[in-house]
Amino acid sequence: MASLHIDLNADLGETTAGNPVADDAAMLEMVSSANVATGFHAGDPHSIAQTLKAAARAGVTVGAHVGYNDPAGFGRRFIDYNPAELADEVTYQIGALDALARANGTRVSYVKPHGAMYNTIVTHEAQAKGVIAGIKAFGDLPVMLLPGGLAVDIAKSQGLTVIREAFADRNYNPDGTLVSRTQDNAVLRDEGDVAKRVLEVAQTGSITAIDGTTLNVDAQSVCTHGDSPGSVKLLRGVVERLNAEGIDIRSFI
Amino acid sequence: MASLHIDLNADLGETTAGNPVADDAAMLEMVSSANVATGFHAGDPHSIAQTLKAAARAGVTVGAHVGYNDPAGFGRRFIDYNPAELADEVTYQIGALDALARANGTRVSYVKPHGAMYNTIVTHEAQAKGVIAGIKAFGDLPVMLLPGGLAVDIAKSQGLTVIREAFADRNYNPDGTLVSRTQDNAVLRDEGDVAKRVLEVAQTGSITAIDGTTLNVDAQSVCTHGDSPGSVKLLRGVVERLNAEGIDIRSFI
Amino acid sequence: MASLHIDLNADLGETTAGNPVADDAAMLEMVSSANVATGFHAGDPHSIAQTLKAAARAGVTVGAHVGYNDPAGFGRRFIDYNPAELADEVTYQIGALDALARANGTRVSYVKPHGAMYNTIVTHEAQAKGVIAGIKAFGDLPVMLLPGGLAVDIAKSQGLTVIREAFADRNYNPDGTLVSRTQDNAVLRDEGDVAKRVLEVAQTGSITAIDGTTLNVDAQSVCTHGDSPGSVKLLRGVVERLNAEGIDIRSFI
Amino acid sequence: MASLHIDLNADLGETTAGNPVADDAAMLEMVSSANVATGFHAGDPHSIAQTLKAAARAGVTVGAHVGYNDPAGFGRRFIDYNPAELADEVTYQIGALDALARANGTRVSYVKPHGAMYNTIVTHEAQAKGVIAGIKAFGDLPVMLLPGGLAVDIAKSQGLTVIREAFADRNYNPDGTLVSRTQDNAVLRDEGDVAKRVLEVAQTGSITAIDGTTLNVDAQSVCTHGDSPGSVKLLRGVVERLNAEGIDIRSFI
Repeated sequence: MASLHIDLNADLGETTAGNPVADDAAMLEMVSSANVATGFHAGDPHSIAQTLKAAARAGVTVGAHVGYNDPAGFGRRFIDYNPAELADEVTYQIGALDALARANGTRVSYVKPHGAMYNTIVTHEAQAKGVIAGIKAFGDLPVMLLPGGLAVDIAKSQGLTVIREAFADRNYNPDGTLVSRTQDNAVLRDEGDVAKRVLEVAQTGSITAIDGTTLNVDAQSVCTHGDSPGSVKLLRGVVERLNAEGIDIRSFI
Repeated sequence: MASLHIDLNADLGETTAGNPVADDAAMLEMVSSANVATGFHAGDPHSIAQTLKAAARAGVTVGAHVGYNDPAGFGRRFIDYNPAELADEVTYQIGALDALARANGTRVSYVKPHGAMYNTIVTHEAQAKGVIAGIKAFGDLPVMLLPGGLAVDIAKSQGLTVIREAFADRNYNPDGTLVSRTQDNAVLRDEGDVAKRVLEVAQTGSITAIDGTTLNVDAQSVCTHGDSPGSVKLLRGVVERLNAEGIDIRSFI
Repeated sequence: MASLHIDLNADLGETTAGNPVADDAAMLEMVSSANVATGFHAGDPHSIAQTLKAAARAGVTVGAHVGYNDPAGFGRRFIDYNPAELADEVTYQIGALDALARANGTRVSYVKPHGAMYNTIVTHEAQAKGVIAGIKAFGDLPVMLLPGGLAVDIAKSQGLTVIREAFADRNYNPDGTLVSRTQDNAVLRDEGDVAKRVLEVAQTGSITAIDGTTLNVDAQSVCTHGDSPGSVKLLRGVVERLNAEGIDIRSFI
Repeated sequence: MASLHIDLNADLGETTAGNPVADDAAMLEMVSSANVATGFHAGDPHSIAQTLKAAARAGVTVGAHVGYNDPAGFGRRFIDYNPAELADEVTYQIGALDALARANGTRVSYVKPHGAMYNTIVTHEAQAKGVIAGIKAFGDLPVMLLPGGLAVDIAKSQGLTVIREAFADRNYNPDGTLVSRTQDNAVLRDEGDVAKRVLEVAQTGSITAIDGTTLNVDAQSVCTHGDSPGSVKLLRGVVERLNAEGIDIRSFI
């Protein structure tokens, strides 16, 4: 019988001007996929290259974490882009990252939209089409998305493989959306709760919403965070728990 | 007998936020090679993509016009880079531009450093090594340089093909350097003088310096400018003169 | 009897990295108010300083043309700002420009929001409050706005003087909004039509909408453009017409 | 008899896009002067405003930490500026920061050049003149500098007050320059060594160089660092030592 397995992904390569956002080295020991910044929402070519080299060494799959050109807002603010401009920015970002990746012994194997872009294309058709067009213009890379959104349909209609993603440390509404960060219960902070979520996804692909509803999202990857000493420590506990349960941490590729 | 020919190159793709620097459409009718900006000293992905598409349509060879990350200074100010950072920025820029080029029916066929980077690596060994390393990390692309500089030697020692460049509208000192822009006679402004320079390069590969010395630079490409209505008009006259003399305008590729 | 007069304003100081957007020198001979960029949507401190010095010499009133921090989009794209961040950016911009203005013999006498910020605060309450708060935090400067918008009410409720603005070269809908640039008839291109509009505002404060409706906007300033050789020439004709009619071009200050 | 006192300064306000560089809150409890970033080498208006508000509340004197416009390099790389451009950028930065400071209950009381600008103007006459001209254009603010450099002479010749600065955690060469960071002994890492340095400056104004030479720099302020948990903890120990010795931590203003 094949063993159970799950992909853990994390946002890395966001160091800018020497100031790190996450502990990339620690995270690369635990995750199987790295969403590497491209210099648009964060990161600079040299720090990105160092993260790519470390990812190659660790055997971690690399994705292009494409975002809005908004370093001042860390890519977290909606910008009302011309979709054709957005498409060209996405192609530019993937090309830049892939060149650095190949120079460091790896390559871009998937694309994950970041921040406001990720959230916007769940419902914004013109931007979703722009982002998918920008990926297609580079090549037929798999794209990591929130299950159920508009971007999923558009990606599939364009022949792209979709990687369905769940969040390790976020609560879900019964409709499959994330509980807003304006709510007290938006984020799971207890290691046990996070481990339970990851195990549920690994074992069933499903997520239990805040009201007990089972969301059959069939997730293939779980998003984790390493942007504080606490979050790294918490993830270490989760990884130990996965190991103890005999669940492999393994990329979807 | 093979006909005489010469490559004319120009800096294009520098439109930023909708504000054009040169008349790219007019220039693409005349030149055989386009040094296309990468978004570092100027240009944004969408305007760059439009220039690339027009270059592909016009059959103009595309080069990556890599520069310092200094849009405020248009890449014209020396920056004391860490060479490893410079190398990674060069690789990033070529990858980004090549992705946009391929999405628009062409590809990056050579690299030309821009502005202060171009001038710096004539004499600055660490930066010259950084720039060449950044190109090599992408692939063995030809690199367009000022003949006689340090970067030429380093590029050759690394196995890169060097495209020796002459300037259509700049005066030369007897040692092969350009007359400084702080001097009154730095720039050729007369159409006849510019045509004479281009014809000399096309017919002999040489340049006559301000004191009459013949510089045997064996130039393969001539840099032209289209950043004012006057410069576009002047180039049109030069192109007509080349046509009248039976000299082909043809890329070095 | 007091002579008729009108203020003409224009967007200046948008030169970035040596590449001009408008012909600032020509415009400063014609307008009575200059909306000077602050470096956020366009402009850099040195080019801004030169425009300020020329404005001081020409006796043209200076306004701070505050905008979104989006040079890549020239401040023309909506960004979903945190209002407190927007307020601080507005204060920052006015302070920066006022320091350069005072160093060059003038000062900031009013504020005009630019581009997407200008349009957004017509209807977006949180951003309108943020922008007005940012102005108040600097001081009680008059603010130039589209008559009828939400920002006008908020500015007045905060004790700020509002300068009501009309557009020389834009058609109006019967409800006082501008005809969208997606429509063929958005822009007035005929010198006679533009002159007629400016005269109507100078003589009556009103504007005739596309269906003939009279909009009693009581405008005190008319926005003009100088971002192409054609627009500068057109404005010259309008200014001559105003002179011929005995209408003074004079700032609202 | 007047008690001994010393000013402790630190670089604050460098948070960009929500990612802090130093622990501003902890530092504001210990230092008497804050060199607050202006958004050029780091910082954004909103985070800067929060640091200014906290500085006002803590009674800490605020200086404008003006730097090169190089966020990608954190202002740490030499850029070959046109001195007139540099002057305008300095005026712009002080004006922007002073506006935010006044909106938050304080004001800019001095100027300290940052990073590569600080080091460059020790020896680079044109840039030193540009920086001092930019300060003068705003007003006659005191300027914090390395004793012995060219910028000190130029500032004095222009009538500016100079605040002579010593470094708490850097070793000095016998000629008064700092031991280069390329040397193993560049930085003092032991709490006792740092405390000894600060006490020496507070009690005598002098510094003992690595060879035992006494440098009579007559320093009025000591630069401290809070950009790591270790550095904050170390400074806490030093402050306790100063308290135990009865030395006041007090601004030079």
